[in-house]
Amino acid sequence: MQYPEPVSKLIEGFMKLPGIGPKTAARLAFFVLDMNEDDVLDFAKALVNAKRELTYCSVCHHITDTDPCRLCDDQSRDQSIICVVQDAKDVIAMEKMKEYTGLYHVLHGAISPVDGIGPEDIFIPDLLKRLQDETVQELIIATNPNIEGESTAMYISRLVKPTGMKVTRIAHGLPVGGDLEYADEVTLSRAIEGRREL
Amino acid sequence: MQYPEPVSKLIEGFMKLPGIGPKTAARLAFFVLDMNEDDVLDFAKALVNAKRELTYCSVCHHITDTDPCRLCDDQSRDQSIICVVQDAKDVIAMEKMKEYTGLYHVLHGAISPVDGIGPEDIFIPDLLKRLQDETVQELIIATNPNIEGESTAMYISRLVKPTGMKVTRIAHGLPVGGDLEYADEVTLSRAIEGRREL
Repeated sequence: MQYPEPVSKLIEGFMKLPGIGPKTAARLAFFVLDMNEDDVLDFAKALVNAKRELTYCSVCHHITDTDPCRLCDDQSRDQSIICVVQDAKDVIAMEKMKEYTGLYHVLHGAISPVDGIGPEDIFIPDLLKRLQDETVQELIIATNPNIEGESTAMYISRLVKPTGMKVTRIAHGLPVGGDLEYADEVTLSRAIEGRREL
Repeated sequence: MQYPEPVSKLIEGFMKLPGIGPKTAARLAFFVLDMNEDDVLDFAKALVNAKRELTYCSVCHHITDTDPCRLCDDQSRDQSIICVVQDAKDVIAMEKMKEYTGLYHVLHGAISPVDGIGPEDIFIPDLLKRLQDETVQELIIATNPNIEGESTAMYISRLVKPTGMKVTRIAHGLPVGGDLEYADEVTLSRAIEGRREL
């Protein structure tokens, strides 16, 4: 005898999520059995609704329940700057900062020849189309500071710079609160390179 | 701007599960957004069904979708032995071993005066009622080897032994594959105490 079928189905469901193995899945499933029925129903509804109601904004490709998304639709935002990020989660991180008031463009990935991801597989052609609009003055490239992110940044910058548009890259350097002693050489060399006068 | 509402509701749902904080919940929620719609629907259904279809067996109090449960209903099992465990998960662990063919009794907890849990709050009165049936010959107490489990074992044994029934406790000792060097004193002393002739 193994788990009753409803339990094993629930365990299977949890196991499809990232980082959840059979032991954790069983623990979560048993926790659900002890949960308030309304909470479980709400959770199940949230799962279905998140999948059904959310789409990607046709302009910036950020996740949204309206189209265009609230960010693209907000006329109080600075329409002259577009910040390019790899992922919808990066938009949330930028918005938490509460200092950037421009627009976004979510690539949903980065160029990675090893994984067979080329410029056409992420939303780079869409970005180029958006840049034809003359209100856009600056393109901030905020892809991740790793090989894929850097090559994507380089690729976009080489395409866009010849048109005369200002293209910038977010700064690399020591994280605030970090310790010089523990910084790796590459970060440290970037921090020196990017030094500014006080 | 924060997450769109369907996303934040899903994150809230995940955060109600044990060991899942805001960061993990967000990661899981974004994973769900990228999942196949059918898989998400199946998962949502599994959640609701697990809650709706499962009850506790009226005989042994194990989780089940039939009443009495398959274990209590199985006439090929040895009706003369009852194994007392604290939790439904313990039954699953025992069944995985595939060597025990008797019946079970799930207490759903252990006596713990600190948490205000007395013998009446777990299914001890039900157990005593089951023991009045004369087919039962032996009671194996397999509560956890910690203070609450031990006191529960002691309590049940003191109640049942005077009736002349055989009451046994599962062995304490070194786990198989364990290392003597790393065993704690209490386990080691129990292992010596419980030594058997070869």
